[in-house]
Amino acid sequence: MKELGYYNGKIGELNEMTVPMNDRACWFGDGVYEAGMCRNYRYFALDEHVDRLYRSAGMLEINAPVSKDELKNILGELARKMDTGDLMAYCQVTRGGGPRMHAFPEGPANLWITLRPKTINTAEEPVGLITCEDTRFFHCNIKTLNLIPSVMANEKARRAGCYECVFVRPGGRVTECSHSNVHIIKDGVFTTAPTDNLILPGIARAHMIRACGRLGIPVSETPFTVEDLLGADEIITSSSTAPCVRACSVDGQQAGMQREDLFKAIKNAIFEEYYSETDLQ
Amino acid sequence: MKELGYYNGKIGELNEMTVPMNDRACWFGDGVYEAGMCRNYRYFALDEHVDRLYRSAGMLEINAPVSKDELKNILGELARKMDTGDLMAYCQVTRGGGPRMHAFPEGPANLWITLRPKTINTAEEPVGLITCEDTRFFHCNIKTLNLIPSVMANEKARRAGCYECVFVRPGGRVTECSHSNVHIIKDGVFTTAPTDNLILPGIARAHMIRACGRLGIPVSETPFTVEDLLGADEIITSSSTAPCVRACSVDGQQAGMQREDLFKAIKNAIFEEYYSETDLQ
Repeated sequence: MKELGYYNGKIGELNEMTVPMNDRACWFGDGVYEAGMCRNYRYFALDEHVDRLYRSAGMLEINAPVSKDELKNILGELARKMDTGDLMAYCQVTRGGGPRMHAFPEGPANLWITLRPKTINTAEEPVGLITCEDTRFFHCNIKTLNLIPSVMANEKARRAGCYECVFVRPGGRVTECSHSNVHIIKDGVFTTAPTDNLILPGIARAHMIRACGRLGIPVSETPFTVEDLLGADEIITSSSTAPCVRACSVDGQQAGMQREDLFKAIKNAIFEEYYSETDLQ
Repeated sequence: MKELGYYNGKIGELNEMTVPMNDRACWFGDGVYEAGMCRNYRYFALDEHVDRLYRSAGMLEINAPVSKDELKNILGELARKMDTGDLMAYCQVTRGGGPRMHAFPEGPANLWITLRPKTINTAEEPVGLITCEDTRFFHCNIKTLNLIPSVMANEKARRAGCYECVFVRPGGRVTECSHSNVHIIKDGVFTTAPTDNLILPGIARAHMIRACGRLGIPVSETPFTVEDLLGADEIITSSSTAPCVRACSVDGQQAGMQREDLFKAIKNAIFEEYYSETDLQ
């Protein structure tokens, strides 16, 4: 298959797939999701993604309709239906269906999966960033389908010819970007926001912290401000599909790009892990 | 028909209707909606609902796929397909479809409508309320599909045997409820939160303010706190489906219920307007 859609066991080409109008995704965005990479039909960091999906679901009291092992088996079977093994895998669990009402329905949750051809974004060129006020809710640690502010921010970045939009809370604290975490290096220290309710605990972020550990780069998980961002030696964004992206500007001002040695060391460590974990066995 | 679902011109029984998996409602909750009442096949406050739908869409740069007049015509035609003319009408516009990506798609927006039998909730008995911290985003003036915090709050109220959950921002300001506005009467003055980005500018709220005007009850559109709520002479919630509901408790403490004369005068004015506007011509 070219692009696969899966809904509660039903499988088809994604652009022909339909879902019940009464799924609560449609009325409330009432669900949680994960997106990750697959190379050579091998999922990268699969346990971490599945664990986070169930953690997100648990925080919203959504009971996934299958066990973690069943989900991993389904993902494995679906990948083998694809024309290529280099894929982005997307998975979401929504809080059942039924007539629209806010309170929880009785029925089981629904499982959605899509698989689309994609190779990991190695981001050979540095990118521009913009900033915008972080007006999102205070549950950003849960990977939910309530994504309108991220949609608006990402579109704003696109129109500015930039890669990402950095969210800044009133008071100046940098949280994360529209679909990435963001990190800085200053005076040799890698600083990234702590995993409170203002950011998603990124899986690529966790891999980057571990890479810094292997490389002997000190890591500080502390809040930083937009001034810190502008004055950083390096600015790096991370996500599962683009795990190590170097930024060269913020809101049109040159920024970062001062410690290529550290950036390259981190990037090499990240991709070394990715490629070795997903090489043909 | 019993319960009608409409999607871009396709019509069917709601529980059998399907929509494309790639509609952005499914991935991002990327849309806006309205819900209102219909009696005797006559929509109540239709212009106000349609105007607000287009205003919500505009604030998210979503271009509705039909004009306001076309939408009103569609709603009129759909109502005539129903077995009863006493309905709740629900309408949403989502930002198109296509492969999942945050930035805006090129294609047109999608129009969703449901019609379900329902009579207006006259709330003959006073209800209990609970409170919870308002952790929502700062776009509550836009009627979006990003409703997880409202879902969680409403479920919390249901479990407490209560009708609604009152959102309270840090610092104590009461904003609104999970699917209603909330108002207080104290010393003869009707007070309701101002229409900033923390509350939805309710249509039932606007009708209630106009009813107070007709009755000579002073209206103050100013922020009030949870202490004001607990000390109020009357507490009233409003929504299009339940336009005037009296509350008798907050978090298990007795509250309100001190000015039955004013409550009854407002409620009578609200329902007089509703019934006269929707009587058989």
